[in-house]
Amino acid sequence: MTDQSQIRIKAFADKIMSAEAAAEFIPAGSNVGMSGFTGSGYPKAVPGAMVARARDARAAGESYAVSVWTGASTAPELDGAMAEVDGVHLRMPYQSDPISRSKINAGLMEYTDIHLSHVAQMVWEGFFGHMDVAVVEVAGITEEGELIPSTSVGNNKTWIDQADKVILEVNSAQPLGLEGMHDIYYGTALPPNRKPLLISKVADRVGVPYLHVAPEKVIAVVETNNPDRNTPFKEPDADSEKIAGHVLEFLTHEVDRGRLPATLLPIQSGVGNIANAVLMGLDKGPFRPLTSYTEVIQDGMLQMLHSGTVSMASATAFSLSEAGLADLIENIDFFRERIILRPQEISNHPEVIRRLGCLAMNGMLEADMYGNVNSTHLMGSSMMNGIGGSGDFARNAYISMFLSPSTAKGGKISCIVPMASHVDHTEHDTHVIVTEQGLADLRGLPPRRRAQQIIDHCAHPDYRPALQDYLDRATATAKGKHTPHILGEALSWHERFLKDGTMQPV
Amino acid sequence: MTDQSQIRIKAFADKIMSAEAAAEFIPAGSNVGMSGFTGSGYPKAVPGAMVARARDARAAGESYAVSVWTGASTAPELDGAMAEVDGVHLRMPYQSDPISRSKINAGLMEYTDIHLSHVAQMVWEGFFGHMDVAVVEVAGITEEGELIPSTSVGNNKTWIDQADKVILEVNSAQPLGLEGMHDIYYGTALPPNRKPLLISKVADRVGVPYLHVAPEKVIAVVETNNPDRNTPFKEPDADSEKIAGHVLEFLTHEVDRGRLPATLLPIQSGVGNIANAVLMGLDKGPFRPLTSYTEVIQDGMLQMLHSGTVSMASATAFSLSEAGLADLIENIDFFRERIILRPQEISNHPEVIRRLGCLAMNGMLEADMYGNVNSTHLMGSSMMNGIGGSGDFARNAYISMFLSPSTAKGGKISCIVPMASHVDHTEHDTHVIVTEQGLADLRGLPPRRRAQQIIDHCAHPDYRPALQDYLDRATATAKGKHTPHILGEALSWHERFLKDGTMQPV
Repeated sequence: MTDQSQIRIKAFADKIMSAEAAAEFIPAGSNVGMSGFTGSGYPKAVPGAMVARARDARAAGESYAVSVWTGASTAPELDGAMAEVDGVHLRMPYQSDPISRSKINAGLMEYTDIHLSHVAQMVWEGFFGHMDVAVVEVAGITEEGELIPSTSVGNNKTWIDQADKVILEVNSAQPLGLEGMHDIYYGTALPPNRKPLLISKVADRVGVPYLHVAPEKVIAVVETNNPDRNTPFKEPDADSEKIAGHVLEFLTHEVDRGRLPATLLPIQSGVGNIANAVLMGLDKGPFRPLTSYTEVIQDGMLQMLHSGTVSMASATAFSLSEAGLADLIENIDFFRERIILRPQEISNHPEVIRRLGCLAMNGMLEADMYGNVNSTHLMGSSMMNGIGGSGDFARNAYISMFLSPSTAKGGKISCIVPMASHVDHTEHDTHVIVTEQGLADLRGLPPRRRAQQIIDHCAHPDYRPALQDYLDRATATAKGKHTPHILGEALSWHERFLKDGTMQPV
Repeated sequence: MTDQSQIRIKAFADKIMSAEAAAEFIPAGSNVGMSGFTGSGYPKAVPGAMVARARDARAAGESYAVSVWTGASTAPELDGAMAEVDGVHLRMPYQSDPISRSKINAGLMEYTDIHLSHVAQMVWEGFFGHMDVAVVEVAGITEEGELIPSTSVGNNKTWIDQADKVILEVNSAQPLGLEGMHDIYYGTALPPNRKPLLISKVADRVGVPYLHVAPEKVIAVVETNNPDRNTPFKEPDADSEKIAGHVLEFLTHEVDRGRLPATLLPIQSGVGNIANAVLMGLDKGPFRPLTSYTEVIQDGMLQMLHSGTVSMASATAFSLSEAGLADLIENIDFFRERIILRPQEISNHPEVIRRLGCLAMNGMLEADMYGNVNSTHLMGSSMMNGIGGSGDFARNAYISMFLSPSTAKGGKISCIVPMASHVDHTEHDTHVIVTEQGLADLRGLPPRRRAQQIIDHCAHPDYRPALQDYLDRATATAKGKHTPHILGEALSWHERFLKDGTMQPV
């Protein structure tokens, strides 16, 4: 039973139905816009009913599949379950699900990997085809029929605007205290009618706390009472702490040189344990009060808001552990004054990121000697997750940092390679690379000097001599010595891993 | 003799001196900011005097070299002459000079290749070190000591602001009728003090027509009377006309589908003969009145302003043929009402490009099957020119198009390859690829479907079977089938060219 306060508008009462009944409104072949971003605010019930439809179809020798467009990653009961029954024809713009990943890499599921700031406008521009149905989780519906957004905003505003039909999931497990935390900007337009986006400080609000929906588009309201997928919080390991230490030392140095103010600039940090370690390091550090203009609020950010290290944080979604979620719910009034959740086209907007001068810290799979960064593809061909918002921030940041341990798979993979097997961030967009070994400051350096910095400061000692040897031989033999490569050998480390299971010579 | 009207302020009269005397103010090892963008508005005299210093130093067994930071490319008497005497320690952010190129690729000259929109802010942020001297060509100096900018703006505003000392070249060969054409924005700031950039239409002016200089910083004024380097205009060849035809057909299709307004959106086109062919095609086409928010005004744009096809054009520089320059001078009053020249951080600003929704058309060296674009490096190692502004526009465009003939070197190079040997624009930023063979619309497509479009529509028939064979075998054998590659073969086309002088099997 949903508490009356979750659905306050009487007009929607006769649209309440089961997830199964709602799923009947979604024909095979539809383009379906779903809510959900880093495991927050995704629909909890309708996807399961679609999975059942797909199973029934299969049992009848037929098929049931749709295209699924979201904010970003969702949860096993959406991405995992739908992929397992081959219920997803095309997925975009981001996923991080193991079953989806295996289907994508088996060539059985189409996946379009897009900058998260580009998705809403490109759908609106009609570049991906028409959206048939939106399935959006909300925390509640007001007396006036306004939608109280859930724990992520993502592309929900655009999905609700663009879809012919809207299915709402009202999740009574989400705190109603979220009401007022969001800032949904309704000023976007297609050119030639676009206007400046008047966010000049992290705390600036330019929208309204609600999602608007035309009541006649709402074809179903489904009541749920399910928590978001939790993201377990791990205490930082030794490598993460070392990476965080190098970042803090660098920021201190920049402040000392007068190249950064003592309150730094708005922090953006990617998702994961390295990012959490950096946040924890900043929390102990001398810089405050900080602000954050980022994509996702993790546990570390809640802690920094509690301690007063961060005064204001803007994002598009939460990604919390069970304890973090409990903290959010318990202290929702405190956090509502210090957190703004925006649509992802705004949280990741190039205009705002450049204006604010974000300090961007994102993870990576590998970087090459020259500073080209691979965020998406293992050994050049296999999709890991996707580019997400890393490019939105890196390209427009004041300082663009990429962080990773120097090795993976117990040392069998070097994350610093002669040539990246896929490039998501070019040499032009990479300012700083950090591993547990150290930090390479690449700003203003030509390629061979970048390579020497990366080899000396970032590569693991087990791989450093081979990298130096490659650089030396390439410099001696390449026809062009601006960015020297030995083309027949440039990708040989990746080939060796595919063949022998290690990049180390065996 | 400079006409009195070129230097109207008496206070600067006693600073007039020879180029040789002015060059004495520039010590070896200086960071020197010079004007100049696509062969327009570069200093004509002081670089020659610096070359003489370098020759004298060499004769005395010493050396004289400086770092040269410009807007973009200059001319043989600057980049060529200074590179020839090893007078350039580090060059940034763009060059296109044959002698510079050969020094860079011989490993004898350092070169940092940067997005043109990033340069001014990164210098101001202190990321490249301190600027010692600025050498800036102007068209004149007013009674109040305001500088009338020349035929390019580039980074001049930032150089004059940042340098300790300023040397002005007043070129009486530049038309004084340029006065009033420029829009120099003085509202830039470092974060956290940046404000929205209030350009919402191509015609919006947000600055002043003059460059400001603190009089006490002006250490020398040098009078010159030399024309800019001319860029010969070639009638479009058959391939350029075919490329232009495909672009026009595509734009017509987009208008018909309602995805573009009938007056299109602001056109950005790169420099060169393909770009000119597209402009000539648009001039004959049905779309008008158009606008252009671009980097460089070429002959084709002057023609479109004459014909009324384009009502307003914004750029940072001219790049004209001798006839184009004569047209500009003769009709300067007409063009001053229809052309705005801005600093390159504004002409290429991500905020404005995204807001206006530019239609970006840039050349490329090669693209791979999956849509990764190489704009800078021949065979992975040798620098051609640089990324210039292509990334500024491609990344933020409404539609990002890359144009090239399908082959180069008489068919010995395929511009469509299995894997790009260098990546300047990633798969995430490439919407459309066009060759004389046809057009591939990649929007929303996952990688293997992109590959099929590019092979079918863009590759030259001589290379199409080998590309299809690579894609088929990679799809059959790669462990990851999202972006299938055969790593040992991915760069073999480039290796073959380096070894045999052709990508064709011999």
